[in-house]
Amino acid sequence: MAKDNFAVAGLGVMGRNVALNIERNGFPVIAYNRGNENAQRMRAESAGKNVTVTQSIEELASLLNRPRRVLLMVTAGSATDRVIDALLDHLEPEDVIIDGGNAHFPDTDRRAMRLQDAGIHFVGCGISGGEEGALWGPSIMPGGDRAAYERIAPVLERIAAKTEDDGACVTYCGRHSAGHYVKMVHNGIEYGIMQLICEVYDVLRRAARMETSEIQAVFQRWTDSPAVGGFLVDITAQCLSKIDENTGDPLVEKILDTAGQKGTGKWTAQSALDLGVPIPTLTQSVNARILSGLKQARVEASGILGRSEVSYDGDTADLVSVLHDALYLAMIASYAQGLHLIQVASREYDFGTDLAEVSRIWKQGCIIRSRLLDPIKQAYLERPDMENMLVYPAFASIVNASLPALRTAVEVANRSGVATTCLGATLAYLDSYRSEFLPANLLQALRDNFGAHTYRRLDKDGVFHTQWSR
Amino acid sequence: MAKDNFAVAGLGVMGRNVALNIERNGFPVIAYNRGNENAQRMRAESAGKNVTVTQSIEELASLLNRPRRVLLMVTAGSATDRVIDALLDHLEPEDVIIDGGNAHFPDTDRRAMRLQDAGIHFVGCGISGGEEGALWGPSIMPGGDRAAYERIAPVLERIAAKTEDDGACVTYCGRHSAGHYVKMVHNGIEYGIMQLICEVYDVLRRAARMETSEIQAVFQRWTDSPAVGGFLVDITAQCLSKIDENTGDPLVEKILDTAGQKGTGKWTAQSALDLGVPIPTLTQSVNARILSGLKQARVEASGILGRSEVSYDGDTADLVSVLHDALYLAMIASYAQGLHLIQVASREYDFGTDLAEVSRIWKQGCIIRSRLLDPIKQAYLERPDMENMLVYPAFASIVNASLPALRTAVEVANRSGVATTCLGATLAYLDSYRSEFLPANLLQALRDNFGAHTYRRLDKDGVFHTQWSR
Repeated sequence: MAKDNFAVAGLGVMGRNVALNIERNGFPVIAYNRGNENAQRMRAESAGKNVTVTQSIEELASLLNRPRRVLLMVTAGSATDRVIDALLDHLEPEDVIIDGGNAHFPDTDRRAMRLQDAGIHFVGCGISGGEEGALWGPSIMPGGDRAAYERIAPVLERIAAKTEDDGACVTYCGRHSAGHYVKMVHNGIEYGIMQLICEVYDVLRRAARMETSEIQAVFQRWTDSPAVGGFLVDITAQCLSKIDENTGDPLVEKILDTAGQKGTGKWTAQSALDLGVPIPTLTQSVNARILSGLKQARVEASGILGRSEVSYDGDTADLVSVLHDALYLAMIASYAQGLHLIQVASREYDFGTDLAEVSRIWKQGCIIRSRLLDPIKQAYLERPDMENMLVYPAFASIVNASLPALRTAVEVANRSGVATTCLGATLAYLDSYRSEFLPANLLQALRDNFGAHTYRRLDKDGVFHTQWSR
Repeated sequence: MAKDNFAVAGLGVMGRNVALNIERNGFPVIAYNRGNENAQRMRAESAGKNVTVTQSIEELASLLNRPRRVLLMVTAGSATDRVIDALLDHLEPEDVIIDGGNAHFPDTDRRAMRLQDAGIHFVGCGISGGEEGALWGPSIMPGGDRAAYERIAPVLERIAAKTEDDGACVTYCGRHSAGHYVKMVHNGIEYGIMQLICEVYDVLRRAARMETSEIQAVFQRWTDSPAVGGFLVDITAQCLSKIDENTGDPLVEKILDTAGQKGTGKWTAQSALDLGVPIPTLTQSVNARILSGLKQARVEASGILGRSEVSYDGDTADLVSVLHDALYLAMIASYAQGLHLIQVASREYDFGTDLAEVSRIWKQGCIIRSRLLDPIKQAYLERPDMENMLVYPAFASIVNASLPALRTAVEVANRSGVATTCLGATLAYLDSYRSEFLPANLLQALRDNFGAHTYRRLDKDGVFHTQWSR
């Protein structure tokens, strides 16, 4: 039996690519999928490599040296439980199961408890990077059983993306379901930044009436921006440049404007509500996807609800510059909201998450990698307990410098009737966060008026109730 | 034993007031609270009335004629389960338990299943109207077991608020947990409209630099508005007029600007995410409360993050007129979002809810009662399956007429640095809902690029995947 072998269960495109990545890095792989199709594809893709493909869980277990290490790359939800059920008949105490799917974090806690009873270690592990990342180096976010993590760390460190200056993009994210929690929020930030990019595109398209090729040139320039540069701007430039073979038009113009949403964005929004952390940019990006899905209703409404907008008639270069700075600020706010959420979750759920480490492993491999993550890491290194990075000097000065641009971007879009679901939510968030006084004093008066909810005062301690009716 | 008697269990202020309301309407009341304090208060408040106060569940059960009817007015959550546990030892098949608290709707379904096994009927019942409503006539939203509802309807119809022209404010809201669902969304709408009013107040206060007494005069005038007039505007005018006895200043200026949030607003936002219904105005009102709660962070940030805003220097009367129309439109959008959510939930959860009836029973008694509910009821009478009332002619014409005002209101606020968490979210919602094309085509390209999520096309059927890298 080969030493140091490693199993991958679930051979969809992500599973196959992770398996090939592990093999390429020197570890023999036992690759399992019950179904024929994925198993056959794995056999084809791994011909001549040190990969043993099996469709039997029993064989998988018998081929692994102990303690066994099995990485699940299965669709989150009941499929994960089914594979764990099947594995339980064949694994033994001290074996390690790593769930590399996008599990909802309470499920990870539940599974860890269950496997603990059988003496089996469980590592909930977020993996980001898409197909390419899985094959050539993803960002890996493991959490849970620390001793088990140490046992798989040598493999994870080899297969992870590498930063130029900062090591491999994997770290122990914390206790319990911290790994899947961090990955969930990663995806929430991803939702937010993607929607922000789409809104910038929409302003250029519908307010400034620019052609796709002109918008492409803007994003192409921004790929070199030290501010907004990163993977998502890179692939935006790439997507906008693609020509549809059938029509010769930009392909993006032919794509139906309805976006699906998987669990992670929604869960991020729901968890933030549970924990009382404001992440409006991320939450509104989920709402934007939901609204995009109502295509038929929108087509109907577009014929009924009037268009009161005007085109932008200012200088296009000015607008592009404004949108650059607005996007920069809104991206910072997206990271700030997501990391704020992880900070509070870490305290609430006893994760013990190191936010500097989280920022570091997001520097390469993952979808939200961008130039911003280096200063973010530096900020959390210096202030590990910081609630919100917006007030950290380096970011505060960007907020102060860029807030007028975000204000202008929202104004131009609003005048043009272009929805600023996330840009607008970001502006409202920043204007709230920096306000010593919000109008919640009136809210408290109203709540005390009809519901005797009581209120506190600015000028003295205590809890008060007023008989408001005259 | 008195005929037709009725028990109320849980004698906080809402419970006591409902008990007094029931007694006043001719039904002998058995009022139960285990604790001394609430029982004593009930004894004091019901002296000379046909109310028997007991601190024993066993006595409560023995005093009720069968089938027994027990209304729980207990804090939602585990307290409700504890009282149900205690009741179960003493109730018999065919007895009816009505939960009048703000239970989370999945809990109501769970309790109904459990009680069904014991042959006991369960009615999850939302009650809105605050203290005053409970005493003089609330809006009552029962759901669940229809036969059991019929058995309690004579009492509920007597104690409910009465419309001038449209009967009592109670109706069967639908199967399963429909009653608590409808009440939950009622509260979500309440959160939204309250936050909108607060933002209007904030624009007048911080952008137009108006005194509280001047703002009070605006809301006082609006109490007569056929557009925005309703309970929440009434009590806003009332709250703004109250003078603090200690200082002689308006009391609202002395109140700490941090708002608590109970479960219902959060649950509304979370349920909408689960069902994929866009309710950004309601969701952002929860975020606004969360942000208000971060007082210390805001005070700190206010010294760090700059103020780039300018005061409004236009005509104040113009601004007031703009804000009136903006509030009107945003209130319509709040009801539209909430009713859209109930419509989808009714289908998804098999409630069979009649939205015209829901609108009718919100016309009086409840916190969100307003002049708008009559035309809303008419719209749903005519189109019971309507997804979103925004496209109904009477409302579409208001959207078209008022959208420029909402646009201006958001612009003035943004320029002044006043957060438009809900006004802005409403504008983005309307601009999205009326857009045939949203920028989700680019979103789909990005998702297909890094994750092979595939996309559909505008010009042909099928599911497509592109190799985006050049």
